[in-house]
Amino acid sequence: MPKVTFLPMQVSVDSAAGATLMEAARSAGLPITSPCGGEGLCGKCRVMVKTGKVNTPPVFTPGPEDGGAYLACQTVPAGDVTIEIPPEVLDDEVQVLGDRSAGAGDSPAAVRSMVVSVEVELTPPTMDETTGDLERLKEVLAAKNSLPGATATLSAIRELPLVLRANGWKARLLIDLTGEHPRIIRALAPGSGPAPRGVAIDIGTTTIFVQLVDLESGRVLASEGGLNPQTSHGDDIIIRIIRAGEGDGLEMLSKAVLGRINGLIEALMASTGTERRDIVAAVAAGNSTMVHLLLRIPPESIRREPFVTPTNHPPVLRAEEAGLAILPDAPAFFVPGMSGFVGGDITAGILSCGLKKHELPCAFVDIGTNGEVVVGSRDWMMAAAASAGPAFEGGGVTCGMRAAKGAIQKVSIDASAGKVTVGTIGNAPPQGICGSGLLDAIAEAMRGGLIDRRGKLVPGAGKGLVREEDHAIVLVPANQSATGRDIILTEDDIAHAIRSKGAIFTAILLLLEKVSLSPADLDTFYVAGGFGNYLNLRNAITIGMLPDLPVEKYKFLGNTSVAGARHMLTSIDALRKSAELAQGVTYIELSNEPKFMDRYVASQFLPHTDVSLFPSVMGK
Amino acid sequence: MPKVTFLPMQVSVDSAAGATLMEAARSAGLPITSPCGGEGLCGKCRVMVKTGKVNTPPVFTPGPEDGGAYLACQTVPAGDVTIEIPPEVLDDEVQVLGDRSAGAGDSPAAVRSMVVSVEVELTPPTMDETTGDLERLKEVLAAKNSLPGATATLSAIRELPLVLRANGWKARLLIDLTGEHPRIIRALAPGSGPAPRGVAIDIGTTTIFVQLVDLESGRVLASEGGLNPQTSHGDDIIIRIIRAGEGDGLEMLSKAVLGRINGLIEALMASTGTERRDIVAAVAAGNSTMVHLLLRIPPESIRREPFVTPTNHPPVLRAEEAGLAILPDAPAFFVPGMSGFVGGDITAGILSCGLKKHELPCAFVDIGTNGEVVVGSRDWMMAAAASAGPAFEGGGVTCGMRAAKGAIQKVSIDASAGKVTVGTIGNAPPQGICGSGLLDAIAEAMRGGLIDRRGKLVPGAGKGLVREEDHAIVLVPANQSATGRDIILTEDDIAHAIRSKGAIFTAILLLLEKVSLSPADLDTFYVAGGFGNYLNLRNAITIGMLPDLPVEKYKFLGNTSVAGARHMLTSIDALRKSAELAQGVTYIELSNEPKFMDRYVASQFLPHTDVSLFPSVMGK
Repeated sequence: MPKVTFLPMQVSVDSAAGATLMEAARSAGLPITSPCGGEGLCGKCRVMVKTGKVNTPPVFTPGPEDGGAYLACQTVPAGDVTIEIPPEVLDDEVQVLGDRSAGAGDSPAAVRSMVVSVEVELTPPTMDETTGDLERLKEVLAAKNSLPGATATLSAIRELPLVLRANGWKARLLIDLTGEHPRIIRALAPGSGPAPRGVAIDIGTTTIFVQLVDLESGRVLASEGGLNPQTSHGDDIIIRIIRAGEGDGLEMLSKAVLGRINGLIEALMASTGTERRDIVAAVAAGNSTMVHLLLRIPPESIRREPFVTPTNHPPVLRAEEAGLAILPDAPAFFVPGMSGFVGGDITAGILSCGLKKHELPCAFVDIGTNGEVVVGSRDWMMAAAASAGPAFEGGGVTCGMRAAKGAIQKVSIDASAGKVTVGTIGNAPPQGICGSGLLDAIAEAMRGGLIDRRGKLVPGAGKGLVREEDHAIVLVPANQSATGRDIILTEDDIAHAIRSKGAIFTAILLLLEKVSLSPADLDTFYVAGGFGNYLNLRNAITIGMLPDLPVEKYKFLGNTSVAGARHMLTSIDALRKSAELAQGVTYIELSNEPKFMDRYVASQFLPHTDVSLFPSVMGK
Repeated sequence: MPKVTFLPMQVSVDSAAGATLMEAARSAGLPITSPCGGEGLCGKCRVMVKTGKVNTPPVFTPGPEDGGAYLACQTVPAGDVTIEIPPEVLDDEVQVLGDRSAGAGDSPAAVRSMVVSVEVELTPPTMDETTGDLERLKEVLAAKNSLPGATATLSAIRELPLVLRANGWKARLLIDLTGEHPRIIRALAPGSGPAPRGVAIDIGTTTIFVQLVDLESGRVLASEGGLNPQTSHGDDIIIRIIRAGEGDGLEMLSKAVLGRINGLIEALMASTGTERRDIVAAVAAGNSTMVHLLLRIPPESIRREPFVTPTNHPPVLRAEEAGLAILPDAPAFFVPGMSGFVGGDITAGILSCGLKKHELPCAFVDIGTNGEVVVGSRDWMMAAAASAGPAFEGGGVTCGMRAAKGAIQKVSIDASAGKVTVGTIGNAPPQGICGSGLLDAIAEAMRGGLIDRRGKLVPGAGKGLVREEDHAIVLVPANQSATGRDIILTEDDIAHAIRSKGAIFTAILLLLEKVSLSPADLDTFYVAGGFGNYLNLRNAITIGMLPDLPVEKYKFLGNTSVAGARHMLTSIDALRKSAELAQGVTYIELSNEPKFMDRYVASQFLPHTDVSLFPSVMGK
């Protein structure tokens, strides 16, 4: 795997074979801006190659362009490379993280991680000065490290006397800053052990994603994702809440999701050579039901009017108490949510996109099993939820899969030639179709006349691409797929996707109406979701999922749940302000809105019943 | 067992058969003053019998005396009784507790227990007001209960949604006040369950004593004591510290003492019908080594110069983390100590006797396996430790036992008649001899000429009481003892006791000299120790353990370690101030004093080499 180092952040990542520089940057926690959705069209993702060689695939316009710049979305490293990212190419929030890892700042407290490493030296005790070890240490932390009122875990107190005496009264301490007072969670020999590491966890209804992060540099050391095993007990949160109320259902659902998270952590440990005790912090973001199921808090009230959670803001827990297999005393923070249907993953998202810093109204939409929408600016924010379903995470789609290696993420259809071209994650042989591929396929099928505006297949269209016997479009024939079976898109899959996109679009429109805004009033429209590293925003507009705005107004941020969790992991300041951020958002229950059902029904067309909402699509 | 109810506190206790009213009062946590050591001589312990009948044993002066008053030390209930205790009869500190249980006070916060029960009622959520359950509850606690910033344990959060919805949005909460913020540790149906209960634990080197306490009334519901099983690994703390450093020694010693404590808690639960989850708080006091061993903190540094502890002030722990088998989330507080050799049991002691409230200098001595001495007043305090050994707790004495039922606690010897009279705890058949009995026996043997001033037996003295073949005085012949064997006091036992009493007296004298005081300058001299309910202070002076002051200056308080722990359990204010109290005491290492060895050698006589120090003893 080529090693890609990004400047000026000095962040390195082992890039998957065939992955583009944009993909490598995103996996390093540095989402490069991509208004055209990584199509090589907008030219906004230009980066400089400082050392090493790169390839550009022959089907796309190759770099270098002006002054040795390459398009990150089109360029694949041919070995170890060093890449400089100009500031304007990084998305806003990440620039903050970039500043953070650069170190210098006028307020050191603002760039502290939730767990910090501190080297201390104590004056040895004498017969005239017999203060206890811990008390002596507290004095030093208060006097020399601006950490007054420190306390310690029992485990750390047990380590302390031996460490201090074996090392001439010096020690390295790991200190948890999440509480009212700093809390020593480990005592080690001075200078020993790696920089403290933490895990950022996205607990999705359908997929789980975990990143191992260096808490000092902010660098993502490795990432792992997988299916949420709770899906075998029901695709959507309502079914799972019902299961949780049956017998030991809650216990079982908690064990299932924790088993997967801990398995992913094991994999991260193995791939990075990290020991369990060196993972000393966790931040998890998920929708309210996912958090309640994981923590075994009865979620029943979330599905019953008035849809109230037992808690929107669980206290900071010990990792062991939460069930996370990292250092048992590590603080585990669950990002505060806003309501039963708008959870901590959305708080992480609005933190991630910096919505609260905008002067003009912006929108944020996170497309997952639920589609959550937030509209607002620095002065006000409102949120709503749409029951989108898991289609865009690969759920309920015949050949659906999550955004992982081998997933089809790009589709183009030449109907006149009867030819489908697909691009997969990691350029691996195609295994199935993920959210961004599904979206492309439907948009391309529309353009090519393979489906009508209701999403029904047009018999005989596309020179045989539409196969009548199974009501499906063949995207990849069996002899070219990794599974040995045709990868197809069925009429049912399309219907499923239309229900999803319609729910999301309806939520966006209704929420804007509540504050007397129209899509055109939005300054920036942030799009998040587990689509992988790519989303063709033009196609998302074409099928009517997103409003018909100039593509330049959109920013695709990828998985903002894990990005926001990572931000809180590495900024105690962001973590502390997250509850306030969540509380500042007014939740709107759309099912209560009289217009909801009419609007939803109107959205069940491609792009929409009211074509005047999509002039750019209908113009084509 | 007769039920004894004390007024005006409204505290009831099931009294052991044959126990005096003084013993019943002490087991209820109400130590009645007893300057003469319960001999029926000073008349200071007069109480009024309001209902029920009492017996007074024929060998002592019977009540009633003036106006229907009885001597509590001489009076045994003949069935259920109600007893009024005049204010002047209670020791100072206990009067505070008495006030507390009476309820009224100008500062309600000052009489809160460390865990309180609060009944709450919430406004139900609506579609327009969808705050989470926990967040809704926090608002009510802040607005209506003066408990701002509350948080909750995960277990309590799990209980909350069901409790609130099953009870019309009402609940009873148990709230831990030991942290920076109030913490909900249980959520129950409104009005359900008993008043919160807690355990006060004295972790002695030789004996363990546990009381189950009603946290609302301050009433002692039951008490249990037993041997510290660590004694099988060495009598004194130095040997145990060495053991702790060998293999899994620390683990083993921790398990041993926790096993006994949890066994005693089980017994308390059984005798009072208490469920484990209803014991919601613990305060433990012990010397520094005992606390470190229990918490598995390596204690090695305590035995090495400069005798420093890993910590004098462990953080408040979860009971489960500390290893205590009560509600897992209950706060477990370990009373802060001062140094390696003056621990939290002494902090509890000086709290218990109110030393910090005295204007004139006072002394406090706690006679256990170690003898700790504190001298001071409200303006200053100094402490020192003497390695006394376990003789006065029954350790290393041929027929020694701890102060439990059947232990000889009083001895009188009529040498001219060759007759020994003994009094046992609970008036049970004699099993062995406890600390107060040992002290009486030696003093009486001195008076009767059975031993000389070096503690050597005088052959043939006491008409055959001194048995030459085994160098022993027969206290109880085999046919009158519960064990079927003679209960004897050997020359070795006496030598052992002389070493102990000499160490204690030397520590008292040296500490007073450090501040240029003599015993005569002391206003009050508090004596504590696990002697049981009785200590003949006159005899303690006779053998040279305590300075030759008028007996009226002495106050025997019994086990102040558990009394102080109980005080902190029922007063969050006292608990919070305990660290400050401990830090206000200057520790003096006596082994560093040049005069120490000379003074110690001089103390190895009965009463002392320098008889001018004991004019009242030598005058007899």
